[in-house]
Amino acid sequence: MSTFHANNRSYSPPSRPIAVICIDGCADEYISESIAQGKMPRLEAMVKKGYRGMVRGALPSFTNVNNSAIVTGMPPAVTGICGNFFLNPETGEEVMMNSPEFRRCDTLLNAAADAGRKVAFITAKEKLRTVLGDGIVERGGIVFSSEKVNEAKKETHGVDNAEDIIGKPRPEIYSGDASIYVLEAGAALVEQGKADFLYLSLTDFMQHKYAPSDPESLEFYGQMDEQIGRLLDAGCIVAATADHGMNAKNDENGEPKVIYVQTLLQEKFGEGVKVICPITDPYVVHHGALGSLVMVHLDDLSQTDEIIDFLWRQDGITEVYNREMAALKLELAPDRIGDICVLSGRDVVVGKTPADHDLSVLKGGLRSHGGRYEEMVPLLLSEPLNDEYKKIAAADPRNFDVFAFACNGAL
Amino acid sequence: MSTFHANNRSYSPPSRPIAVICIDGCADEYISESIAQGKMPRLEAMVKKGYRGMVRGALPSFTNVNNSAIVTGMPPAVTGICGNFFLNPETGEEVMMNSPEFRRCDTLLNAAADAGRKVAFITAKEKLRTVLGDGIVERGGIVFSSEKVNEAKKETHGVDNAEDIIGKPRPEIYSGDASIYVLEAGAALVEQGKADFLYLSLTDFMQHKYAPSDPESLEFYGQMDEQIGRLLDAGCIVAATADHGMNAKNDENGEPKVIYVQTLLQEKFGEGVKVICPITDPYVVHHGALGSLVMVHLDDLSQTDEIIDFLWRQDGITEVYNREMAALKLELAPDRIGDICVLSGRDVVVGKTPADHDLSVLKGGLRSHGGRYEEMVPLLLSEPLNDEYKKIAAADPRNFDVFAFACNGAL
Repeated sequence: MSTFHANNRSYSPPSRPIAVICIDGCADEYISESIAQGKMPRLEAMVKKGYRGMVRGALPSFTNVNNSAIVTGMPPAVTGICGNFFLNPETGEEVMMNSPEFRRCDTLLNAAADAGRKVAFITAKEKLRTVLGDGIVERGGIVFSSEKVNEAKKETHGVDNAEDIIGKPRPEIYSGDASIYVLEAGAALVEQGKADFLYLSLTDFMQHKYAPSDPESLEFYGQMDEQIGRLLDAGCIVAATADHGMNAKNDENGEPKVIYVQTLLQEKFGEGVKVICPITDPYVVHHGALGSLVMVHLDDLSQTDEIIDFLWRQDGITEVYNREMAALKLELAPDRIGDICVLSGRDVVVGKTPADHDLSVLKGGLRSHGGRYEEMVPLLLSEPLNDEYKKIAAADPRNFDVFAFACNGAL
Repeated sequence: MSTFHANNRSYSPPSRPIAVICIDGCADEYISESIAQGKMPRLEAMVKKGYRGMVRGALPSFTNVNNSAIVTGMPPAVTGICGNFFLNPETGEEVMMNSPEFRRCDTLLNAAADAGRKVAFITAKEKLRTVLGDGIVERGGIVFSSEKVNEAKKETHGVDNAEDIIGKPRPEIYSGDASIYVLEAGAALVEQGKADFLYLSLTDFMQHKYAPSDPESLEFYGQMDEQIGRLLDAGCIVAATADHGMNAKNDENGEPKVIYVQTLLQEKFGEGVKVICPITDPYVVHHGALGSLVMVHLDDLSQTDEIIDFLWRQDGITEVYNREMAALKLELAPDRIGDICVLSGRDVVVGKTPADHDLSVLKGGLRSHGGRYEEMVPLLLSEPLNDEYKKIAAADPRNFDVFAFACNGAL
């Protein structure tokens, strides 16, 4: 066991392989329902012996925000990653945060590699590789996405012939396979001795599309279970959490419940209002860029209080903060958010204008995330907790503590 | 099948017996962990065939508030029951809402009895019988609490010799038995043909005391499972939900995390501040009257905005509303709440002053509820949902829809 440090936290992993999985969009109901229907026998046995509990994610409950928090062990106030997308105050431009320069602290993956661990970071989405994978290859580790596994090269990704190692060709990104492939890659790398400290981050395409009891979801979780079994059989400590939950965002007729915040505010307060949807990313088929948190930018800050009061009064809006309070209450970096931060309810999303969102890409209603009701997610660990981590688990553990649980928490 | 109406909602129960259970304080983790450890085989099989999902409770996430909502099908804005305790604006006195005169609409139990159903309402706590049980005996139904089952008489409770019918003497109120006894009573009444429309409301003594994985909790849920099995064997449609969830409210050393709001505000703003803890009830051993929501009353309303801003800035405080916004955003009756309504985080409780709360009654740390983090609770139904209720379940179903699910939702 060698201890390493990252961002003032210390990690003392045993020498066994460690696999941390981020099951993108995995609301706890997916685990309960898949186990109930007999689709996850390996996970069922794993948490019976080990641990299953709830942890609190970071807000906004988006993918980049929480993956950044998980690989650093820090909240967004420290990572600086407060959305997939933000309005850069220096340039006035809307910017996709798809490169590591936006991140304000280094990853624990790099610290683990420096301490001699064979690190592998496999993601479904290429965007996460580019935002969070910097430094690993230079330290002898492996980084690639299932989306672009065919582009993996020794010099740039730490490995040649990744598809041969995994034994399968590149999957379609809009599929459950894109996630299963990440787990297959992780299992293959451990089985072949090429990695012993893994972060495996999936995509929520299936959770956006299917509810926990849908046959397609049950089948998907069943496939996930086989690969978790492979990781366990390869001797891994397995820890899993989610970046965010997932809720249906429709009325009782299955129609999406959308509040177009820019339209609403411009009608009432004029043109000097701009809304940014920080869920926006290149993968629009998932959600049409509709989530449960948006940022509002104002030309005239003297309107702030009046607009905040107006927004609070809207049915379906659940939280409204000015920039200072959003930073304080949601652990965000004040220069990476809007003048006003708006959250919506369990069954409601917030958007920009009707023209900015293509609802036709959504088949079978909208399922999405981003707000308070997608904040609580499961934590699953293959080992029973030691006394220290029992206490931590009984306080207010976070999803970005998952590496600490995996490295330090096992009995 | 005969349809009845209550508070503008309609219920069309099949003629089979219907048993609705409120598992007091049943955070979803209790169900997951008890099933995982093999303690609830009947419930496991029941939800595999039927339905398990999450529903949103009423805030404050307290017992009286949510039991009132469940038996009326209405939120607290309609029932008027916004806490166990409130400051009566007409008298200036702190009042326990322990009689039906405080309730502003009639119960669906009375409507079911009027439609010819043999209603039984059995609770663990006597307080719930007195607040919600009015009218049932006059309509030929049965109402008693396990706490005072020995006082049950035909004229006042609709039944003589209740202990003989159940086959067991009165349990201790501070025990798991107080809850199990309610289920045993319900099963006995159905088995003996004395009731066919039941509301069985338990107590959260065990959940306040034990975490989901504690052996005592697993044993308790195992006993619950046997009685759920009896209800199923007697032919019941069984539906279960919770009034609220339950979270540990301690730091990582196991010490309760308490913000004494009256002390805090009086130090800063003077003596004209009074805090009411609406979790307060006669059963203090559970929680020392500490929950995650308090009401603040001000002598000088001109201080309201300043105090709200001050409270928002406190670490651990998660929501602060003035009276108008609390009524609007939390579905509360404006005349039954404070000038300011304050909610705290997953691991934090709010109280009055240190002298008002006896922490020595708490053995093994504090577990409590009342806030947003105890709002989401499970819904369990013995039958698969029909198409209409599948859609309702996929929107924003509430725990106070549980009778609608049981009566109207089965395939």
